[in-house]
Amino acid sequence: MTESRHEPPLRGPSEHSIRDQIVEAATEHFGHYGYEKTTVSDLAKAIGYSKAYIYKFFDSKQAIGEVICANRLAELMQVVDAETAAAPNASETLRRLFLALVNGGSNLFFHDRKLYDIAAVSSREHWPSAQQHCEHLRLLIQRIIREGRESGEFETQTPLDEVADGIYLIMRPYANPVQLQHNLEQAPEAADLLSTLILRSLAP
Amino acid sequence: MTESRHEPPLRGPSEHSIRDQIVEAATEHFGHYGYEKTTVSDLAKAIGYSKAYIYKFFDSKQAIGEVICANRLAELMQVVDAETAAAPNASETLRRLFLALVNGGSNLFFHDRKLYDIAAVSSREHWPSAQQHCEHLRLLIQRIIREGRESGEFETQTPLDEVADGIYLIMRPYANPVQLQHNLEQAPEAADLLSTLILRSLAP
Repeated sequence: MTESRHEPPLRGPSEHSIRDQIVEAATEHFGHYGYEKTTVSDLAKAIGYSKAYIYKFFDSKQAIGEVICANRLAELMQVVDAETAAAPNASETLRRLFLALVNGGSNLFFHDRKLYDIAAVSSREHWPSAQQHCEHLRLLIQRIIREGRESGEFETQTPLDEVADGIYLIMRPYANPVQLQHNLEQAPEAADLLSTLILRSLAP
Repeated sequence: MTESRHEPPLRGPSEHSIRDQIVEAATEHFGHYGYEKTTVSDLAKAIGYSKAYIYKFFDSKQAIGEVICANRLAELMQVVDAETAAAPNASETLRRLFLALVNGGSNLFFHDRKLYDIAAVSSREHWPSAQQHCEHLRLLIQRIIREGRESGEFETQTPLDEVADGIYLIMRPYANPVQLQHNLEQAPEAADLLSTLILRSLAP
């Protein structure tokens, strides 16, 4: 997070930085009061801008929520990428991916509950940010399978798409915020058990 | 459903049949108005018994809901048992089990939405009826794995519990009413794809 909005800009701030300021303030505000209960008027009051001014930069409350959500999901995927980068092989990459998704989602749930709720709304309402996140995850799984096939760790008989879609479906209840909340308690054990089952299904 | 409550009993009805009458009427009432919004007073008025009389047979609204839920889950499992009984081998039994769970849950959702909601409450609040249903499903999976091991269809290296728990976890998002509603659209395809993945993991 930048601290720019607490310092008056030397020259007029660019459109880009005003957008950033609005998103940053909205992240804080939604993070306290929740996304669904807050109106753009509430937000405008809290930030000290007029509602009309905010609407110059964002078409709707959802448009602001989208950016917050995309930022948060990008952060989560950075953690996931970092956790999986050093894995010695494709099997271990898959295990670490599953666990990192569960841990990232649980952290968000327990430490940033209101932002977790935005992620849940985005998923329930099929926002582009949520869709892109799913697509990112699906491609990541495909890449890992491809690597494991090239190294001889995984079987190569089943069509790649079919394998990746199946694994994605197994991970989704733990990656998707709407569903993760029903699975939180046993999520780390489930990630372990299900990774092992997935790896058995991938054996050459 | 019996029609007994529309006919005056020849002799005084047994406690058992009064309980049945209350459950039957409550099933109809909750089925129309929902479980969560209905009080025992509403129910008493609708049935034509006093609230105090109902409390002679059931400690609470939940106690009535429990019986309704257990009945409905038993019906679902009867369908599941019938669908899987004629399968020629353990692999096909597993496939049919998964599909029957999805179809049974979807039917309940689309044709008996208010009773689906009771099942969701029972699952969310860990009622004994929901717990028993999970346990039943878990044992059924174990039985199928055991049969497939005996017939040589499935590998025998992995501990039985581990295999069964993993499969149960994969099926749960489609068997559990709280989660199925987020997965309804693609549930039949998912059941197919995931059955295939599970069977690959079970290959000897």
